[in-house]
Amino acid sequence: MTDPIAPARSADLAVPVALAPTPAGLLKLSVGNGSPATLPDLTAEAVRALGAMREEALQYGPLYGIDALRDGLVRLLAEDGVRTARDGIIVVNGGKQALELVARALLAPGDLVALTAPTFLTAISIFRREGATFLPIPLDGEGMRVDLLEAAIVARRAAGLPGPRLVFDMPDFHNPTGVTMSLDRRRRLLDLAEAHDFVILEDDPYRRIRFEGASLPPIRSLDPTGRRVVGVGTMAKMLAPGLKVGWIDADPALVRRIGALKMDGGSSPLTQRIVADLIASGRLADITRAITAEMRAHRDALAAGLERHVPALRFRRPAGGYFLWGELPDGMDGDVFAEAAARHGVALFSGVHCFPGEPRRNTLRICYSVCTPAELERAAEALGRAYAALAAG
Amino acid sequence: MTDPIAPARSADLAVPVALAPTPAGLLKLSVGNGSPATLPDLTAEAVRALGAMREEALQYGPLYGIDALRDGLVRLLAEDGVRTARDGIIVVNGGKQALELVARALLAPGDLVALTAPTFLTAISIFRREGATFLPIPLDGEGMRVDLLEAAIVARRAAGLPGPRLVFDMPDFHNPTGVTMSLDRRRRLLDLAEAHDFVILEDDPYRRIRFEGASLPPIRSLDPTGRRVVGVGTMAKMLAPGLKVGWIDADPALVRRIGALKMDGGSSPLTQRIVADLIASGRLADITRAITAEMRAHRDALAAGLERHVPALRFRRPAGGYFLWGELPDGMDGDVFAEAAARHGVALFSGVHCFPGEPRRNTLRICYSVCTPAELERAAEALGRAYAALAAG
Repeated sequence: MTDPIAPARSADLAVPVALAPTPAGLLKLSVGNGSPATLPDLTAEAVRALGAMREEALQYGPLYGIDALRDGLVRLLAEDGVRTARDGIIVVNGGKQALELVARALLAPGDLVALTAPTFLTAISIFRREGATFLPIPLDGEGMRVDLLEAAIVARRAAGLPGPRLVFDMPDFHNPTGVTMSLDRRRRLLDLAEAHDFVILEDDPYRRIRFEGASLPPIRSLDPTGRRVVGVGTMAKMLAPGLKVGWIDADPALVRRIGALKMDGGSSPLTQRIVADLIASGRLADITRAITAEMRAHRDALAAGLERHVPALRFRRPAGGYFLWGELPDGMDGDVFAEAAARHGVALFSGVHCFPGEPRRNTLRICYSVCTPAELERAAEALGRAYAALAAG
Repeated sequence: MTDPIAPARSADLAVPVALAPTPAGLLKLSVGNGSPATLPDLTAEAVRALGAMREEALQYGPLYGIDALRDGLVRLLAEDGVRTARDGIIVVNGGKQALELVARALLAPGDLVALTAPTFLTAISIFRREGATFLPIPLDGEGMRVDLLEAAIVARRAAGLPGPRLVFDMPDFHNPTGVTMSLDRRRRLLDLAEAHDFVILEDDPYRRIRFEGASLPPIRSLDPTGRRVVGVGTMAKMLAPGLKVGWIDADPALVRRIGALKMDGGSSPLTQRIVADLIASGRLADITRAITAEMRAHRDALAAGLERHVPALRFRRPAGGYFLWGELPDGMDGDVFAEAAARHGVALFSGVHCFPGEPRRNTLRICYSVCTPAELERAAEALGRAYAALAAG
C-alpha cells in the first residue's frame, strides 16, 4: 500500500523562503512587511462596511470584485495614465494571487518567461509551479537590459528556439534592487513585445512609494492596444498587507478568462469595501503619503548606516520602494553572510534566492520597511560587526 | 502573429454557473448565500482587530493562518470528535480554495475522483481543472451508495483500471440533496479507503446547521491514522460568506505541502482575527444557532409551499443545511423548467449542473437560504404556475 497522502506531482516545491517566518528576536530586514508606525486606523471604514454596507460585506462577493472597488481602481490607474474600465479589472487576494492567475491563464508547461536577474523571489516560485522555464536578463541602473533581452530572443530564434511567452518585470522600484526602468527602455520593451509577440507582465506594487524625482508612465499606459501589457497591483505596500487586496488590469477578454480560473469564487467583499471607501474619500492618498515619508526616513537611516558601518558593501541608493540590494566583495558568500548576520541579531536574505538561473552569490536582499530608523541604524552596526567577523575569519 | 493573450491550455473552462450573478428582480433560489436576516453584527470584533490587534490584522499573516484561529478551529473540531492540533490546520480563503488546494496536492492529471451524482457543482469544476476524471456514484437517503462505489472499484480493478485516488463527499446535509450519510456508511467508506488505498475528502460546511435529530461523527473523527481523511470546512454557512475564512484539517505533512501550494502567501489576518475572537467568546455558537433557526423556518416555508403548489415535484425534506433537491416527473427537463421559473420571477438552477457524468435531466437544485419564508412561499406559488404552464404546453 502506498502512502495515501504522497505528493502527486514532482512540481511540489518548498515554501518560498520569504514566506517562512523570521526567527524571533532578530531585527527584521528579511521581509517587505508594512511599517508598524504607519499601519493605518481603518476602524471607521470597517464600521461602515459592517454596518451600512453589511449585506454587501458579509455575503459572497462578485467573482470579479465589488463594482465600487473596480471603479475606484479604474480612477486610481487613470491617475497613472492607464485607460481602463470596470470590465478590465479583476480584484484578487493580493499581488501574489494576481501573478499566479496571470501565469495560469497565459503559460503552458515549458513556456519561457523572461525576467530580470535578480527578481522578486516569490514570483520565481509562482512561475515555476506553472511549469515555466526562465530566460534571465541582467539589469542596470535603468532597469532590465532590454538590448540583451532582444539579443537573447534573436539568438534563440536563430537556433530554432521559441522566444518568451511572458516578460515579467517591476519597472518602478524593482524588488529587490530598487531600480526604476527608464522611459526609453519602457518604450523599447513594448516595441519588442510587438515584434516578438510576447506579453509584458508589469507588477507595480511600489510606484507610489517614491522618495524623489518624477514618476514615469507605466508600460501599460504606453500600450495602444491594451493587449500587450497585463498590469498587476496590490494595496500591500501603499496601504497595508493584511487586507489582501490586489488586482489584475488587462484586456477584458483576459480578465474574463482569469475569472474562470479564480476558483475561490471571489475575494472578501469586506476588505474590498474598506479599500473602495479609502479610494473614494481620498484617505488612501494620505496614508500612502505617510508611508512614503516613513520609508524615506528608513531608506536614509539604512543607507547612512551601511555607508558608515559596512563600507565594503556596494549598493545603489533606492529612490523609492521597500528594498535595497547589496553587493559584497567578490568571493564573499551571501548565504554565509546572512548566517553571520543572524548571529549578530539581524535577519536578512542572501540575494541568491532572487535569481531565476545561476545566482550571483555575493549579494544581499535588504528590506528596510519594518524596522524603525533607529533599529536600522543598529542593524547596520550589527552587519558591520558580522562583516568584520567574516573578513577576519 | 498570434493573439498575445490567447488561452494557453485547453482546460480553460467557463465560470461555474453558481458563480455567475443572478439576474436582478428574481426571487433568488439559485445560490446558497447567507440569509440577510442573520448576517451578524461583527463591528465589535472588527474594532478590536483593527485597534488592539492592528499590527497582526494589517500585516501579512502567517502562511498557515494566525495561531489564535488555528487553535480555535482545533477546539471547534474537537467538539465534533476530531482530534487534531495547530499543525494539522491551514487557514485558506474559503471552502472553494480549500478544495482547489487539496486537489492540487493530491491529484495528478488523469487521476480518478469518485463523488456522488449529484454533487456540489463548483467542486466538479475545481477537480476538472486539476485534470481529474470522475467516477460518479449514486446516493440515496443514507448518502453515497458505498456498496456501489466498492463494486465499481472491484470492477475497475478486474479490468486492470486504477481505482479512485480521492473520494469527495459532503456527509452532512449534502449539497445539493440535503441528505446525511448514515454512520454505517461512514464506517464502510473508511474501511474501503483502507482496502483500496484512496483518500476521503470530507467537505463539511453544513454540519452545524441541523434542524432536527442527533449529529453523527465526521468521518475524519473515525479515522485512527488521521491519514485517510482530509477535512475541509468554512465559516460561510455557519457565520457569513464574506469573511472568506475556510480551512483544511489534515495530516501535518499534508498541511505543510498544501502551504507550499498556497501561493497567495497567507489569507487575510483581519478576517481571521474576527473569526478567532468569535470562537473564543462563544458568539460564533450563538450566531450559528440563529442561522439554524432561520434556515429551519426557510425549509418549513419552502417545503410547505412546494407540497401545496407543486405537488408533482418529489423531494426529500432536508433535516439541515441550505439546499433542497427536487425531481420533476420523468420527461420534464430541469433546464426548461428553470427558464420557465425565471419567466415567473424565480431564479434556480436545473440539477443538470450537479452531475459529474451523465445528468438526470428532470432535477432541480433549490436553495432556500436567501429568501425570507414569505418570499419562499411566493416562490413556491410562482413555481406552481411555471409548472402548470409547462405541463399545459
